[in-house]
Amino acid sequence: MEKLHFDTDYMRGCHPEVMRRLIETNMEQTAGYGNDPYTAHACELIREACGVPEAKVFLMVGGTQTNATVIDGVLGHHEGVVCAETGHINVHEAGAVEASGHKVLTLPSHDGKILPSELEEYFSSFYADDTYEHMVYPGMVYISYPTEFGTLYSLPELKEIKEICRKYNAPLFLDGARLGYGLAAEPGVTLKEIASICDVFYIGGTKVGALFGEAVVIPQGKLISHVTTLVKQHGALLAKGRLLGVQFETLMTDGLYQRISRQAIDTAMALKKGFISKGYRPFIDSPTNQQFFELPNDLIRKLQEKCTFELWGPPGKDTSKVRFVTDWATSHQDVSMLLSLL
Amino acid sequence: MEKLHFDTDYMRGCHPEVMRRLIETNMEQTAGYGNDPYTAHACELIREACGVPEAKVFLMVGGTQTNATVIDGVLGHHEGVVCAETGHINVHEAGAVEASGHKVLTLPSHDGKILPSELEEYFSSFYADDTYEHMVYPGMVYISYPTEFGTLYSLPELKEIKEICRKYNAPLFLDGARLGYGLAAEPGVTLKEIASICDVFYIGGTKVGALFGEAVVIPQGKLISHVTTLVKQHGALLAKGRLLGVQFETLMTDGLYQRISRQAIDTAMALKKGFISKGYRPFIDSPTNQQFFELPNDLIRKLQEKCTFELWGPPGKDTSKVRFVTDWATSHQDVSMLLSLL
Amino acid sequence: MEKLHFDTDYMRGCHPEVMRRLIETNMEQTAGYGNDPYTAHACELIREACGVPEAKVFLMVGGTQTNATVIDGVLGHHEGVVCAETGHINVHEAGAVEASGHKVLTLPSHDGKILPSELEEYFSSFYADDTYEHMVYPGMVYISYPTEFGTLYSLPELKEIKEICRKYNAPLFLDGARLGYGLAAEPGVTLKEIASICDVFYIGGTKVGALFGEAVVIPQGKLISHVTTLVKQHGALLAKGRLLGVQFETLMTDGLYQRISRQAIDTAMALKKGFISKGYRPFIDSPTNQQFFELPNDLIRKLQEKCTFELWGPPGKDTSKVRFVTDWATSHQDVSMLLSLL
Amino acid sequence: MEKLHFDTDYMRGCHPEVMRRLIETNMEQTAGYGNDPYTAHACELIREACGVPEAKVFLMVGGTQTNATVIDGVLGHHEGVVCAETGHINVHEAGAVEASGHKVLTLPSHDGKILPSELEEYFSSFYADDTYEHMVYPGMVYISYPTEFGTLYSLPELKEIKEICRKYNAPLFLDGARLGYGLAAEPGVTLKEIASICDVFYIGGTKVGALFGEAVVIPQGKLISHVTTLVKQHGALLAKGRLLGVQFETLMTDGLYQRISRQAIDTAMALKKGFISKGYRPFIDSPTNQQFFELPNDLIRKLQEKCTFELWGPPGKDTSKVRFVTDWATSHQDVSMLLSLL
Repeated sequence: MEKLHFDTDYMRGCHPEVMRRLIETNMEQTAGYGNDPYTAHACELIREACGVPEAKVFLMVGGTQTNATVIDGVLGHHEGVVCAETGHINVHEAGAVEASGHKVLTLPSHDGKILPSELEEYFSSFYADDTYEHMVYPGMVYISYPTEFGTLYSLPELKEIKEICRKYNAPLFLDGARLGYGLAAEPGVTLKEIASICDVFYIGGTKVGALFGEAVVIPQGKLISHVTTLVKQHGALLAKGRLLGVQFETLMTDGLYQRISRQAIDTAMALKKGFISKGYRPFIDSPTNQQFFELPNDLIRKLQEKCTFELWGPPGKDTSKVRFVTDWATSHQDVSMLLSLL
Repeated sequence: MEKLHFDTDYMRGCHPEVMRRLIETNMEQTAGYGNDPYTAHACELIREACGVPEAKVFLMVGGTQTNATVIDGVLGHHEGVVCAETGHINVHEAGAVEASGHKVLTLPSHDGKILPSELEEYFSSFYADDTYEHMVYPGMVYISYPTEFGTLYSLPELKEIKEICRKYNAPLFLDGARLGYGLAAEPGVTLKEIASICDVFYIGGTKVGALFGEAVVIPQGKLISHVTTLVKQHGALLAKGRLLGVQFETLMTDGLYQRISRQAIDTAMALKKGFISKGYRPFIDSPTNQQFFELPNDLIRKLQEKCTFELWGPPGKDTSKVRFVTDWATSHQDVSMLLSLL
Repeated sequence: MEKLHFDTDYMRGCHPEVMRRLIETNMEQTAGYGNDPYTAHACELIREACGVPEAKVFLMVGGTQTNATVIDGVLGHHEGVVCAETGHINVHEAGAVEASGHKVLTLPSHDGKILPSELEEYFSSFYADDTYEHMVYPGMVYISYPTEFGTLYSLPELKEIKEICRKYNAPLFLDGARLGYGLAAEPGVTLKEIASICDVFYIGGTKVGALFGEAVVIPQGKLISHVTTLVKQHGALLAKGRLLGVQFETLMTDGLYQRISRQAIDTAMALKKGFISKGYRPFIDSPTNQQFFELPNDLIRKLQEKCTFELWGPPGKDTSKVRFVTDWATSHQDVSMLLSLL
Repeated sequence: MEKLHFDTDYMRGCHPEVMRRLIETNMEQTAGYGNDPYTAHACELIREACGVPEAKVFLMVGGTQTNATVIDGVLGHHEGVVCAETGHINVHEAGAVEASGHKVLTLPSHDGKILPSELEEYFSSFYADDTYEHMVYPGMVYISYPTEFGTLYSLPELKEIKEICRKYNAPLFLDGARLGYGLAAEPGVTLKEIASICDVFYIGGTKVGALFGEAVVIPQGKLISHVTTLVKQHGALLAKGRLLGVQFETLMTDGLYQRISRQAIDTAMALKKGFISKGYRPFIDSPTNQQFFELPNDLIRKLQEKCTFELWGPPGKDTSKVRFVTDWATSHQDVSMLLSLL
């Protein structure tokens, strides 16, 4: 029997409906670089879904390139980007932000989140320091939603962070690589709320039903100038841009994005409940598609015979931390089979 | 009736056989970032096809990111890349090379090609200049094959360029965004000859039957260190790397890449012959899938009613330069229809 | 006897009056980084001399760092700097502009100058190109005054260039590493004219009487934001900034800068006249402190016994091109001795 | 009466002996860019003083540019530099390292120092992490000596750090902006010990008797290639390089550098002892020329009437942290006057 896979949420291709549309449109000839009707329509659907008719929307291939491009587009030469020390841009993007010349300024991570109070303190003590002209200015704030630990900011937290950003004139950027899973979780915030709070964010496709693709949304429309040139300079302008357009058009039609995100959350909650009911405790309380447990090493070895998943950090003496990830295609049967191994 | 499109070679999706394999493998779960069996197999097939068993091969999404990443990986801090002033990296990549901190050093373009004699002169006068330590060293040489003007270097020309590169210790990088069309042209060079001459090159997929994808080959295997980190830093590491693996595996199986490239060349030659037989002269003599003619503006307007193609430079008073491009899916019927409009 | 030196204009220390002030102020304790009264006064004197009371003025150590810092401060991510292909930033600054991520876009050099007509053509054809979003935008224009070949733009030429810059929204940057020698030449333009035309320029000290130092002037005051941080980031913020302040204060007092510049021009003109009267022809007609002659190799060898100067390019078979440079300390006796060797 | 100044150690010009030599050599004409006999001699004296005859030595103007240039020269594209979170490169250099494309990787600061144990842990857990290819490699280690808090590593600590660096193939870089004051402190390490341990370090001149200048020493001579071009690219190649040569030649002659450093330490120790004898406690126990006390705000206000010094961080309610800095020219009378105010 084939093993079960709970390693991560980018192991499969795309949702069958997305694939169907790629097949249907495959032999059409359209203009390149996103100047095609599918991309235009996808962007229009995104603006509608976000409730921001003036938004600038553009589509990119992957998360790291999106982060590096957006950050490079927003920051001035004297500015860096503030994020949790566990932020993806600080840890797992091979220094892409710095390679564009910008510093990542870190705050403590609280299960992946920054605290509004610590953000406020960072800004206020920066500007209180007489030597701040010799330092990198905090020019924007990066948060991930969900975070790298599956956690979510509440709506009040987001609003508080935004208020601080506004006070210090630092745009708020939300990395939504797994945005669908955040939107589908309980209690969540809506896409429109995200769009009303953030200065720029992206709707992740790669991990949520697309072969690849991230849709960047700038609600007020003016934050980044000369987007095409910037994206091209970052090596991120897809020649056959309509591949992104077709995928996001499909995901944004008839609520597909939300529907398939819900599937990941439902199965993740079943998984979480199952582990807890067997007496295992999550070491992070995640409401999204990533679930974190500390398990006996014996059990881990036993599970590994039938299932793959990630160790989270170095193995411990008796127990180790592990992560289980569901995605849009995880079935309740998959979860039941996993739980039956406990 | 639908218009004919001869604008460029990245207007369609992918070859049906490539699509078939993407569909077949769509719901499989594999490791990410190219650590999957499809990628491994694709790289192995590429090594075989190139006759370089020790080669390092890695797969990237698009041309600009490939150029910027390879050049950044090869050059030292004191070095720039030499190319024709019409080279894609110098003109149409939005300064991606410079954004990574490296200067592009230009030579005159001869229908897209550099002359070995001018390259030799560049190197020798550089090192003869007493002030060269204040200048950017010519640290590698970039050529495109075919060039941006559809032209090809002959085998002796390639060897002569390589000899100069070796003399001055500057790796030779061949941009093969349209490599298939160069290999299929007459008189051509073979993939193995390319691999035996170049220090690094790539096999273009985006314009030759793939949805997207470029396969970088480093025949001697050691030119660039820490490739995964470098590629990630450039925002170019595809999460679902197997999408590239599946595509190149398919293109490299049963000679598909060569076969579909041949189709583009056959139709391009038919197109060229047809125009010439009607009395129009190419202003560049291209043996590949891009064909360049200077046509009366009246005729251009007439053609534009049924057909799209690119003006090549600003329109002239009575005549203008235009480009027609075929690809792996262009049919002889398409060409006949175009020619019937003359 | 000590040899005569006409190699270049940065072989000596500083003008004795500058040294006197450095000695007088040596043991004073002032705040660092330019926050001292000497720097404030120097900047004020410069604003007055330039007739631009609202100007932002800041002092830097050397030319390359000034060019790289100013260009980095002015350009957006999508922009490059236009200059003559012989421009110092394009040839002899080791790629410092590119190391900051910006492309240098070149125009033909006419004895070091760009032609307004070719500049206009560059801009207009750039924006006429349908693919310009894939290209580096011409975001500012760099000229040197005097040029690297000792030549000068006339006032009408400067105004014409500025008009084009204004039309295309590209700030005009004048590299004044040898500005004093340009101002002292005939027919010249005045410092106030320079300041009324340029968007940013610098008054060179290193080659004109200072130990080191370049004074950047932004007449309208707003072109570059966060200057201190930018300069610091470029490693160019001198800890003991008052050293620059003291030097420029001295040079800007009682017309010292103009007076010592005049000395270099007078001696250069005497030198030029002397060579011409002996039948040697300048291959560039320079009105400034650099003089260019093509001389018989025999004569060159003879001169080299008593004098040092630079070969300008590779030696020729019978004759070679050479450059003689005077500076603020060159005496008429030095020139007479040189001419007596002819 | 003139106020006393204990703000920092770069408030004055240079030691009179250094000035004397600058005056003496002022009107000499020498080759530029460090190709002069003074620079050659200074480098030779430095090699001798360090006991490393094969060392590569080069002279730069200031600390930030030295740090950024050295780090850029050492690191590969996939690497960052490890330092204490309080390291000057991480805090007060306006992101110069990142502007060159490299990430600063931080360790906890222990009064400015990193712990060998935490460094070992950083390296070992980096390479133990399965995802390290997605992360910035720790490619070199930066320490300051003395640190930004006046503290010193002991010889065993330096050796232990070096051992870890060797194990993980990461060159050790010592920022010696205040090196003289570290060498003169008790218990200290010698210049030869520094040179035998570090892969690259610099001897600070700006804060220790020179007008400006830092001498970079690469004991094994090969760590950084193409130094002149690298330095030029960083805008850091001084045209009149002999100014650096003359200064370091003077400082390295007859033990001047050590002698004047000793003066700063003697006065700092007198100052420290005086404060302690009056019942004030240092909050950092520094053996060098920076002394740190927490003082009642009343006393601070009283001192400020006659004396300038820096608040160290934000003022407290009743007491605040302050820093007093001595330098090569501080007299015992200065210290007595300060202490008399307590």
